[in-house]
Amino acid sequence: MIDRPNRIAVKRTACSGGVVTPGERIVPEEVPIAFSYGGSTHAVMMGTPADLEDFAIGFSLTEGIISEVDQIAGVEIVAGDKGIDVQITLVDEVATALTARRRSMAGPVGCGLCGIESIEQAVRKVPDVAAVPLKITHRDIIESVSLLNGAQTLHRETRAVHGAGFYLPGKGLLAVREDVGRHNALDKLCGAVIAQGQSGAEGIVAVTSRLSVEMVQKAAILGSPVLVAISAPTALAIRTADEAGMTLVALVRGEDFEVFTHPQRIQPGTISDVA
Amino acid sequence: MIDRPNRIAVKRTACSGGVVTPGERIVPEEVPIAFSYGGSTHAVMMGTPADLEDFAIGFSLTEGIISEVDQIAGVEIVAGDKGIDVQITLVDEVATALTARRRSMAGPVGCGLCGIESIEQAVRKVPDVAAVPLKITHRDIIESVSLLNGAQTLHRETRAVHGAGFYLPGKGLLAVREDVGRHNALDKLCGAVIAQGQSGAEGIVAVTSRLSVEMVQKAAILGSPVLVAISAPTALAIRTADEAGMTLVALVRGEDFEVFTHPQRIQPGTISDVA
Repeated sequence: MIDRPNRIAVKRTACSGGVVTPGERIVPEEVPIAFSYGGSTHAVMMGTPADLEDFAIGFSLTEGIISEVDQIAGVEIVAGDKGIDVQITLVDEVATALTARRRSMAGPVGCGLCGIESIEQAVRKVPDVAAVPLKITHRDIIESVSLLNGAQTLHRETRAVHGAGFYLPGKGLLAVREDVGRHNALDKLCGAVIAQGQSGAEGIVAVTSRLSVEMVQKAAILGSPVLVAISAPTALAIRTADEAGMTLVALVRGEDFEVFTHPQRIQPGTISDVA
Repeated sequence: MIDRPNRIAVKRTACSGGVVTPGERIVPEEVPIAFSYGGSTHAVMMGTPADLEDFAIGFSLTEGIISEVDQIAGVEIVAGDKGIDVQITLVDEVATALTARRRSMAGPVGCGLCGIESIEQAVRKVPDVAAVPLKITHRDIIESVSLLNGAQTLHRETRAVHGAGFYLPGKGLLAVREDVGRHNALDKLCGAVIAQGQSGAEGIVAVTSRLSVEMVQKAAILGSPVLVAISAPTALAIRTADEAGMTLVALVRGEDFEVFTHPQRIQPGTISDVA
């Protein structure tokens, strides 16, 4: 593991009620994190330097490079001056498939594809979770968010990071991951869930952020049929969740929330009775 | 211009105080937006389909493809079923330079670079704004944010988009742009500022979001020496602003705020007297 702190105290001057006070604030660290497969970089993202093995597994899963955790033979974390290189070794068969895919795949930098072709490539098909039998209650929705809020240790110190949690109905949170980037937090969570041998189909994915289409894609790839968010969804996130058979719940505030798609998963006596 | 709405009313079921009510909510649209130069796609991002000419100009600027607005010969917006292709025509000299740069530049998909090389490429040098003579007051900071808040028309309806504004001290807001993505909102703002022939060196960039390093990079590329945010900064954003000579103000709440770097730009009698 990397011994790089995920937060740091910085000096700052506060101006509050017209009174100027020097002091300190704890802010989250942000570093470039590269994912390399077979020595060749796949992507570089800015993120929180914590839970990098989970990030490697989850990123590989949600990017469609692996479909199960056993397809990763090893993860090595190499810290450099300017960032962290997460070196992922895939099992032979999967490594060969990735090499073939790379040859046929255009990169975003001057790829030679026209815009419409590139958009087709960017809008990936989202797995269908309509058949997943999970049922939840009103209480599960509230609990998934309140437990997530309580478990955000980095956010409690910095007030500046996103969180993602995996909640098993009636049982509580299986995992929580945090990151300065909301996509990263969810990728880390996906990695933590499959690394524990847990099926995504059995639980709720809860996030602190807004719901863009990529959050729906990642939750569906994990196999979860319920995505719950504190903030609001975009129209494309709603359409995508609707088509994928996913229950989308957003704007969870205390005991209140709004259901945008597939309320039938929420058991009678709570909300699905009006659906 | 594209006649695609940037927001839409969707049906949803609200559960508030235990009472279940069907109804509608206005949510922001989110579409894949491709940027193509000379028929070849440079990037695809998810964004709000509004102010796309500004986005084209600002993206080209902050990506280092152009240094002034006259280097763009034309922008054509082509709407497809699944997204929008923003087709940018550069003046000959700049188009030739981009083609040469693309040949020497590796793309992020299986680019053949190792992680450390890719990180070096990802961490771009940020322009130095230390010599920019702009001075501001305590009042300018408060005003830039309160005027930005007041001008966020899409956010007022959806509560789900980010905003970026350019504020001229003592004069008010020159432009405000909104997007579901905070980077996009700032790119659109940068485009709007230079399209109006305004120098970034004369004003404050104010944003509603958190301050990651890329927000500092974009503001510095625009030439602005002051970046003000409603939310908190990351450690890397602070270090980068410090090195670039930029005044970083964050956590602006009503009349209160915190200054993280270069408070000397804030005039005496306000806050710099304790710096």
